[in-house]
Parts: sequence; structure tokens; C-alpha cells
Amino acid sequence: MLRFKEIRLVIFDFDGVFTDNNVYVSETGEETVLCSRADGIGIDILRNLDIPFYVISSEINKVVTIRCEKLGIPCKQGVLKKINALEELVKKHKIRYSEVAYLGNDINDLECMQKVGYPVAVNNAVKEIKDVAVHTTDSSGGKGAVREFCELFNTCY
Amino acid sequence: MLRFKEIRLVIFDFDGVFTDNNVYVSETGEETVLCSRADGIGIDILRNLDIPFYVISSEINKVVTIRCEKLGIPCKQGVLKKINALEELVKKHKIRYSEVAYLGNDINDLECMQKVGYPVAVNNAVKEIKDVAVHTTDSSGGKGAVREFCELFNTCY
Amino acid sequence: MLRFKEIRLVIFDFDGVFTDNNVYVSETGEETVLCSRADGIGIDILRNLDIPFYVISSEINKVVTIRCEKLGIPCKQGVLKKINALEELVKKHKIRYSEVAYLGNDINDLECMQKVGYPVAVNNAVKEIKDVAVHTTDSSGGKGAVREFCELFNTCY
Amino acid sequence: MLRFKEIRLVIFDFDGVFTDNNVYVSETGEETVLCSRADGIGIDILRNLDIPFYVISSEINKVVTIRCEKLGIPCKQGVLKKINALEELVKKHKIRYSEVAYLGNDINDLECMQKVGYPVAVNNAVKEIKDVAVHTTDSSGGKGAVREFCELFNTCY
Repeated sequence: MLRFKEIRLVIFDFDGVFTDNNVYVSETGEETVLCSRADGIGIDILRNLDIPFYVISSEINKVVTIRCEKLGIPCKQGVLKKINALEELVKKHKIRYSEVAYLGNDINDLECMQKVGYPVAVNNAVKEIKDVAVHTTDSSGGKGAVREFCELFNTCY
Repeated sequence: MLRFKEIRLVIFDFDGVFTDNNVYVSETGEETVLCSRADGIGIDILRNLDIPFYVISSEINKVVTIRCEKLGIPCKQGVLKKINALEELVKKHKIRYSEVAYLGNDINDLECMQKVGYPVAVNNAVKEIKDVAVHTTDSSGGKGAVREFCELFNTCY
Repeated sequence: MLRFKEIRLVIFDFDGVFTDNNVYVSETGEETVLCSRADGIGIDILRNLDIPFYVISSEINKVVTIRCEKLGIPCKQGVLKKINALEELVKKHKIRYSEVAYLGNDINDLECMQKVGYPVAVNNAVKEIKDVAVHTTDSSGGKGAVREFCELFNTCY
Repeated sequence: MLRFKEIRLVIFDFDGVFTDNNVYVSETGEETVLCSRADGIGIDILRNLDIPFYVISSEINKVVTIRCEKLGIPCKQGVLKKINALEELVKKHKIRYSEVAYLGNDINDLECMQKVGYPVAVNNAVKEIKDVAVHTTDSSGGKGAVREFCELFNTCY
């Protein structure tokens, strides 16, 4: 059982968490991703609980900027290693790694998820990620995983 | 068993009802939603029965305007609280809440669905919505829920 | 068992047959549909057998024009009633209705499918269409139904 | 059991392998395809193992160019017959056909897959392709088939 009241910082990966890990590529090279309207309502739960939350994404991609802006989520992009961005945020908020929850899906989330106290995997995460996660959502990325994860704070907080 | 002949006003939520609740977000910030061609044929059933119908959507979004225009559905957008738009329509049509059907999917539909006589949930609605609904469609939002709901008027009217 | 060697004309509906019956609607009102690369290989089978084929679509939609051009399928669009376009093609090719195959999915195909000798429904067609069809494909529209239908000509011709 | 350490060249088909074999067609004729972010991580595995890899695609399509550039995959497009492009690559790399792996999905891959030593089919390949394949991935095209295929090199190499 996760003790959600101990969580003081929430980190989200973007691709595969806010999206279904697919990318729609057009002839002109424009990239489009699929997101769920349900996730916005989930983010509002964290906001009401006053828990700080961030997206950390390795790649610099305008689509991440745009989606995070719409949902009002501060976003760290183009970080060489996600673990560095995580470290910076932990210091900034003066908390311990054990107080951080991280929702991820793929091996570039592995290092962070091994470090934090509440690593959570989306349902369609790769095996390596599910193996280190303390909880796996019933929903897949882009199909309500963020919403489901945020609702845990309401029921378990 | 719903007594559809008593229904004198039909209200639809948009996202998650006319769409699968996903949004496709492009690098330029353009939003795109998935709709079903089948739903247009469903709306024609209501039109032929002369039952007034509306879309009520909290967010102001051009994609809602465009889809509603194509299907010929009057649309209330950017309403702070959906319940206010509902009240306005009930007064305008001089009917009672008990004569209104409402097709919804998420918690921002809850207040309206608790008020009307015929609250109906799409198949992939959240639990809170299904709990108050008198009927749940077999189809999910954007996958024929509107069509199926409208066809009930033909079989049950 | 369909006697495919008797078929001298093939008619396709577009939406729900070459597509999954969904439409992606953008903020600017641009419509996009999902098609299968597999279907193009199916159309080549008909072409090699020298059987004339057409798309008949009620709505005038540029996306139909564009997809049909790419696949090399002559296309009748914006016909008030599909049955009129069918009649015209039967006369033009000097054949009988009993020699026509029609692949459809929704009630606006019903009249044509009741008239031709080989009405075929895609797997996700509505009940009324499946009821009049002499055969239903295993695949759904936009998910290989056209390919599967065309391959029947190779195996049954 | 595939002996992956014998493989000295990897060939990928594009449509139906890097994509789900669907194409999104807009009113303006722009084509868009769905790809998986997971596949990029798979390609990195091959790159780290120093095995040359290529995409061979019959059709000339800008979307293929753009996706291959992003993933850093050299690409042969608009080849009249794929077998000719394969022959050229085998000669260039001074290897034997028996040392080539090929990941394909449809009948235009058949000739190549009959020639190489390690023909592999994606899960949703057509029957003819699965019949000649020595292995079929659990994942479908565009849904992680490339990633899964590349990971075999790590576990079996």
C-alpha cells in the first residue's frame, strides 16, 4: 500500500505517460501525439492538494511544451540525463528522494525510478520499469494513466 | 426501462461523448479530435422526431464549434458551470428537468446528470457518472455512443 | 457460397469501408480519415482481373477524392441518392443488378445492397446492413475489409 | 532458435513495420502515419552492436524520409523491386543473403524474405509472410514490433 500522504513531489515522464507512446508523423515532419482529456481533471487533483508536480522529458519537443502549458504543468525538457533534472528539483524543494513519486514507462525512466520512494509504472510500461515500480496503474499511458495515478492521492492521501 | 416519449430536451456533453475523450496535439498546438461518421445519422433521428438537442461544453474550443456546425447541433461553450447552461435551456423550452435527457462521461457532467430525469452514461464514462445514470450505452464515446443513444428514441419512443 | 465469377461490377462505399468510419476533426475544420495501406494491394487484384470498380459516396468530401485518386478508383460523390448512381453505372456497363457486388456498412447503403446480387457487409456494419448481406468480412472498415473482400475474387473467381 | 550472432545486415520494411499499416489522409492530401516512440530505443540497440540496418520502401513518400532521418536509419525508397535494393546492399556490405535479417509484413516483402537467412514477420503480417518467416514478433507493426525485434539481438546475440 502506497502511503501517499508522504509524497511531497510528483514527477511525470511525458511520452508513454501523457501519451500512448505513439507519434503521428506527417509528410511535412510535423509530430502530433494523442493525449487524454481525462488527465487534465487528474492534474487538478494534485493542484488542489498543493503537491508540486513536473514533467521531465529527455527530448526537446514543442508538443511537450504545448501540452504542458495547456495543463499548467512546469516542464523540464532536453535534459541530457533525467536524473540530473530530478536532483535539481529535489534540492529546489528541499525534500528527500524518498518523498518523490515518479510515473514512467520506459528504460530512460529507470535510473530515476530506482532512486525515488514511489516509482509507479503505467500499465503498458516495459518490463524493466514494472520490475522496479511499487505500483502499476490499470490504465495505459495516454488512456487515463495520469488521471488514475492522481486519483490515488484523493483516495489514499 | 426509459420512457423516451417523455423526453422533451436532449443535452450532450462533447468531449468523451462525441469523441473518444482523446485529443491529438500537434507541435503547432493545433488540437484534433476523433469523431464517428455514425453519429451524424443518429442526430438525424432526433431531428426527425422534432426533439430539441444541444451540446454543452465547459471549454471554449474551435473544434467543438466546427463539429457541431457540421452536424447542425446548437452549442453552448465556455460555460463556467454546465448547470447554468442547462437551467437556461430548461427555462427557454418551458419544460421540467424531469423531461431532459443528458448524455455524459465525466465528473463535470455530474451536477447536470443528478438534476435531469434521464441521465445516460457512455460506456467508458467514469464510475461516478455511471452510478447516477439510469442507462449506460453499449458503445463508448466517439465510437457510436451518440448513434446508439439516438436510436433508443426510435425503438422506445 | 458467393459465385464470384458472375460478378461484373464492384461498388464500394467510402466511409466505414475504406475508413474505420471515424473522422479526425481539427480546430481549423480540416477533416482527416484513417485508411489502410493493405487496401491498395487489394484493389490491384480487381484491376488485374479487369473487373470495373467504383466508390459511391453521398457526401462531397475532398478526402474521398484524394484517397480514390491515389488508389486509382473512379468515384461518384455528392449523389443525392446512391441508388441513382448505381443505376447509372449498371446501365453504363450494360449489366444486370444481379451481377453487381457492393461493399457497405451503414443504412445509407441499404437500398443499393437490397438491389444487387452480391451485397457484402464489413464486420463492423450496422445490423440492418448485415441482415441483407450475403457475406460479412472478418475485417472491419479501414482495417483491411477492402483487402479481404478483394482477395475473395482471387480465391473464389 | 534464431542465431542472431550470425546476422550482419538488418533490413526493415516501413509501412506496417514502423507503422500500423494505416495512413491518415487529410482533405489537402497530406499523409500522416502512426509510429512508436519505443522503436527509437530499439534502433539504438542495433547501432550499439554495430550492425548496419536499412529501410527499403517501394513507394517514394516524404513521411518515410522524415521518420528515417529522425531515427537515423538510411533509407532506400522508390525501388521498383525491393529485391534489387536488397541485392545492392548485400553486395555493398560483401555479405551473404544467409546473413541478412528482414522484418516485413505484406506480400511485397515476400521475395526478399524468401531469399534472406532470417526473415521475421510482424504479428499482424499477412499469412503469406508469416508462412515464410522463421520468427513472428509478439508485437504488431507500429506497436513495438521494431523494438521487440531489436531487443532479440541483445538477448540472443
